[in-house]
Amino acid sequence: MTNPPKRIAITGAAGNIAYQAMFRIAAGEFLGDQQPVALNLIDIPPAMPSLGGTAMELEDCAFPLLRDVLLSDDLEKGFGDADYVFMFGARPRGKGMERSDLIQENGKIFGPQGKAINDFSSRDVRVLVIGNPANTNALIALHHAPDLDPRQFSAMTRLDHERSRSQLAARTDQPVANIARMTVWGNHSPKMYPDIGYCTASGTPVRELVGTDWHREEFMPGIQQRGAKVIEARGASSAASAANAAILHMRDWVQGTPKNDWVSMSVLSDGSYGVAEGIVFSFPCQCSESEHAIVPGLELDAFGREQLKANEAELLSERETIADLLS
Amino acid sequence: MTNPPKRIAITGAAGNIAYQAMFRIAAGEFLGDQQPVALNLIDIPPAMPSLGGTAMELEDCAFPLLRDVLLSDDLEKGFGDADYVFMFGARPRGKGMERSDLIQENGKIFGPQGKAINDFSSRDVRVLVIGNPANTNALIALHHAPDLDPRQFSAMTRLDHERSRSQLAARTDQPVANIARMTVWGNHSPKMYPDIGYCTASGTPVRELVGTDWHREEFMPGIQQRGAKVIEARGASSAASAANAAILHMRDWVQGTPKNDWVSMSVLSDGSYGVAEGIVFSFPCQCSESEHAIVPGLELDAFGREQLKANEAELLSERETIADLLS
Repeated sequence: MTNPPKRIAITGAAGNIAYQAMFRIAAGEFLGDQQPVALNLIDIPPAMPSLGGTAMELEDCAFPLLRDVLLSDDLEKGFGDADYVFMFGARPRGKGMERSDLIQENGKIFGPQGKAINDFSSRDVRVLVIGNPANTNALIALHHAPDLDPRQFSAMTRLDHERSRSQLAARTDQPVANIARMTVWGNHSPKMYPDIGYCTASGTPVRELVGTDWHREEFMPGIQQRGAKVIEARGASSAASAANAAILHMRDWVQGTPKNDWVSMSVLSDGSYGVAEGIVFSFPCQCSESEHAIVPGLELDAFGREQLKANEAELLSERETIADLLS
Repeated sequence: MTNPPKRIAITGAAGNIAYQAMFRIAAGEFLGDQQPVALNLIDIPPAMPSLGGTAMELEDCAFPLLRDVLLSDDLEKGFGDADYVFMFGARPRGKGMERSDLIQENGKIFGPQGKAINDFSSRDVRVLVIGNPANTNALIALHHAPDLDPRQFSAMTRLDHERSRSQLAARTDQPVANIARMTVWGNHSPKMYPDIGYCTASGTPVRELVGTDWHREEFMPGIQQRGAKVIEARGASSAASAANAAILHMRDWVQGTPKNDWVSMSVLSDGSYGVAEGIVFSFPCQCSESEHAIVPGLELDAFGREQLKANEAELLSERETIADLLS
């Protein structure tokens, strides 16, 4: 193992999702078992003592690939030389807080973080925003990183994508590994459009197997409300499954998606599928060597086009809310 | 992937260590990426709703290797056909509870669980007890499984082993992958003996590099008190690092330890090194194809022999406390 270590910055590092993700990353589940890694764990000052305990636990795992762990509440140090950034940290919604307040408050976090990535991270950095509202947070971050390509930023809809694949596997009674070409379009919000129009189960079009009624009346609301259902059952929001999706998103971005399949990634719209430019929107994407490409030429029916429009409208409205932060 | 799935039972499944372990197990970190797995998640009735949320998250990961997840508060179903058992669950020490009360209370859990493993698990089952007091809990469990070989049961000292390797790597400034032949002897309690007598760092005897004073005055108490230090920093006990050690313990037991190296495992004493038979004691072990063998013929100095005696005495006293449960 003579590869120089890759430096991975993690925000919200003292939180539950990061606690699930970082041990798997250190074990090699993101970059493979031949690639040494260094972790930059970033959180706010009051979280530092508990983060120190997490760092002790990383040490106690004796991971052969883990070269270095840096803890910081300073953005310059935290994002310094980062090759990959997992942005788990976000301001959660407080009691009586409007969604617009939430978006504003998060803007104040993601602006300076985007600027620090711009100023101090690797020129080839790849950034994934998980913290909600993820799409608009990613938009703010990339706007504050003018020296980087906006294509180096993305937001996560992969958890919705994997939830969809799993539900379709159960419904069609096929192995989940055989569910391909799922697409989640739009915003990581209850408006997202989980589209099975091109999806196959062991090669058979899923739409033929499950029917339109089930798709629209059971599957779609099931995926859109899944996060709330998990919270209801666990008494806490998804942590392990969100961490898993984040690792899959970054792994496939770097190592590539399988031929003939794709993943759902929220990236800056280039106008594909008639979606307004300048918002971070979930598209079907194929990846190779840390580059993504929006899958072109899929046909959408009237219902699908309507769903995309509703997501576009929601994201344009979110952008309006933080317009002052996109200067 | 045509291998039939291996069934893995996990107790204390709604707890924090299990939450860290099961997603890594489902991802293939225990049995590798070609072996499908099924999970039997066991906990007490009040934990079932939250465990249901965890099961939703497992589903939401769409793990290609995960074939089946069963939730149960019934020991027959829970341990039924299990090939491997991770026993994370244990009664934690309540306020004002004496250690002897704690041992007694846990005995009441591990007796029936051992019996259920005896009656319902695979005849080739391998069992790891993580829940404390792990060594004596394992002793109780194996006593209640007279139809199985006691060698199918073990308790975890692997976290102490990895903590030791990591500290020695830092002290000797060598990669942790190059720290070999560490041994933790005795009980998983502050009395444990982390012995560096045969340990090497990149081939050099560690003892020559670090000196006896550092070993006895800093390293030993550091390892013995490490768990308490993590709790102090995190405000919660080790979860991710304990889960990691449990996976390593079971993985090496099944897949084998590297040639010329060994691991620390608590197993039923066969009288090796003069340790009384009939207690579960941590020894240096080599493994191959799900069998372990205590490494023979290591020489211990007077200090080391004294440490082993103190651990033996503690474990004999623990056994005395639960003598009525070993009928």
